[in-house]
Amino acid sequence: MPSDHQHSEFELIARHFTPAPPGPEAGVALGVGDDCTLLAPTPGRQLAVSVDTSVAGVHYPDDAPAEAVGHRALAVSLSDLAAMGARPRWCLMALTLAEADDAWLEGFSRGFRALCDTTGTALAGGDVTRGATAIGVTVMGEVAPGLALTRHGARPGDLVAVTGALGGGAGGLALWQRGERDLAHPLLARYLRPEPRLAAGEALVGLATAAIDISDGLLADLRHVLARSGVGATLDAAALPLAEGLVEALGEAGAHEAALTGGDDYELLLALPAEHLDEARARLAALGLPLTVIGRCEAEPGLRGVAPSGEGGWQHFRSAGAGNAGGDA
Amino acid sequence: MPSDHQHSEFELIARHFTPAPPGPEAGVALGVGDDCTLLAPTPGRQLAVSVDTSVAGVHYPDDAPAEAVGHRALAVSLSDLAAMGARPRWCLMALTLAEADDAWLEGFSRGFRALCDTTGTALAGGDVTRGATAIGVTVMGEVAPGLALTRHGARPGDLVAVTGALGGGAGGLALWQRGERDLAHPLLARYLRPEPRLAAGEALVGLATAAIDISDGLLADLRHVLARSGVGATLDAAALPLAEGLVEALGEAGAHEAALTGGDDYELLLALPAEHLDEARARLAALGLPLTVIGRCEAEPGLRGVAPSGEGGWQHFRSAGAGNAGGDA
Repeated sequence: MPSDHQHSEFELIARHFTPAPPGPEAGVALGVGDDCTLLAPTPGRQLAVSVDTSVAGVHYPDDAPAEAVGHRALAVSLSDLAAMGARPRWCLMALTLAEADDAWLEGFSRGFRALCDTTGTALAGGDVTRGATAIGVTVMGEVAPGLALTRHGARPGDLVAVTGALGGGAGGLALWQRGERDLAHPLLARYLRPEPRLAAGEALVGLATAAIDISDGLLADLRHVLARSGVGATLDAAALPLAEGLVEALGEAGAHEAALTGGDDYELLLALPAEHLDEARARLAALGLPLTVIGRCEAEPGLRGVAPSGEGGWQHFRSAGAGNAGGDA
Repeated sequence: MPSDHQHSEFELIARHFTPAPPGPEAGVALGVGDDCTLLAPTPGRQLAVSVDTSVAGVHYPDDAPAEAVGHRALAVSLSDLAAMGARPRWCLMALTLAEADDAWLEGFSRGFRALCDTTGTALAGGDVTRGATAIGVTVMGEVAPGLALTRHGARPGDLVAVTGALGGGAGGLALWQRGERDLAHPLLARYLRPEPRLAAGEALVGLATAAIDISDGLLADLRHVLARSGVGATLDAAALPLAEGLVEALGEAGAHEAALTGGDDYELLLALPAEHLDEARARLAALGLPLTVIGRCEAEPGLRGVAPSGEGGWQHFRSAGAGNAGGDA
């Protein structure tokens, strides 16, 4: 790396993002510092790949803690691997920054790299450029051929179920906008530091017939699964598991609305045959994660059991304010 | 894809970016429309991966033609594969848009997809979000283990050589800033529609000892190779091959400066043993591409043969105006 310019891009990268050379188990044949990263995929596995961009002021508040921004930018991409039942291997970070703020970068990289470490994801390369602050994260994982969880496998009669609890993303955002800054508050933690359900996704391979991560809101994401699977569903809206503190923060109606249409929950939404429910619950219980049945798939298209007023979900170029505005192409 | 909102993100994606389902030769087991793309890497190959972000007003002029922006965003990423001698397989596009302009998207996607087609790159997934306009492109290619061209293999005595001609990127930008809008002008074509040297990169595998693509400027990129290889070099600045029309546009001194320090050329800069020169030239001649020797590597560190005033090159957070501001981490 050249060092003839102080505080240059290259020095910033070197200081905050050049990882220790990964061990051979990471499958990185050539890491950061060349035109490309060279990776060694596991023979016989499919490669699951996804990219998500987090834009300051759109996907997270401009004044969110840097460490949370780093964690979150990686978490939302890893959540896509979780939804496929894939095991994370590598990520690349495309960082666009309005200014080079050393303290911010220190916190950001700390949050990003800590989640790399806990999930076994090697930061294998990236790009730093100048512009409105945004973070694009490409994640790559591996899954056995034919076993990935997809959106298109749900069948009539399958149960609709969710991991964990709902509404925490929207509830946390609402609290942040009201000025709450106690990062230990369970809703703020849910919003700012979502935990991708990677172990749950892998545990559900062979049990679930379809899966998606809840990023756009339960109803919007369920509709994706139903449309791709060619089925309908009836929800039991009273069965929705609400995030801790959600009713206290938003009231009964607001909590219900947040669970149905709020984005940024990053729980997994599943379809699974009733005969797999006990085994799925047992595997998730071993991970400390509840699995709640919230409806059933049916042959008749459409979504029933929820009031029309609750049928929202975020749409880009239509919504205003901070909140999830990401979508997969 | 849901269709209950007109002009929604999903419709925009579906209209412009949902590719025809790729054939089995593309190695896409599951394409656009799920949480992840599922890819089938070729057994026994290494995966070469790179990401680059193109920011409107930083990496290309705000008023650049949409078709050129699409071409260019992909080309600059593919150029990194060329520099490794890797064959492109797949790409993902993370598109951040300030507004959803149908005509712009049509041109953009046309330029992007045409380059996908001519280079055999399958658009395998992506993300569309709202924010200041920027395009992040992740490319994935394949190369035989141990054969990738890298930055670290140059040895004392190796020749320093470049493909094609230099200075076209900076010359084209200068013309654009003066109001030139004839896209057929050779310098504008070089700047707005660079051609990644993919076939050349593959042809040089086994001949070159080191390679890099010239994105930050010849001197800056040569320094990367020298630093990683632990060698120095003496350049013959008079030998630099200048892009067509460059002297007419910038004058002698300006043309020389553009060739030395201008970014955005996307030619390949190589180190290669003298005994490989004839074979390398023959292979590139078959591709219609000249190879020009511009210097020689030496054991003594440092770069000689160029005036200190010419030792620039773009650095982010320091440079102003449109021009290349990308760098690999």
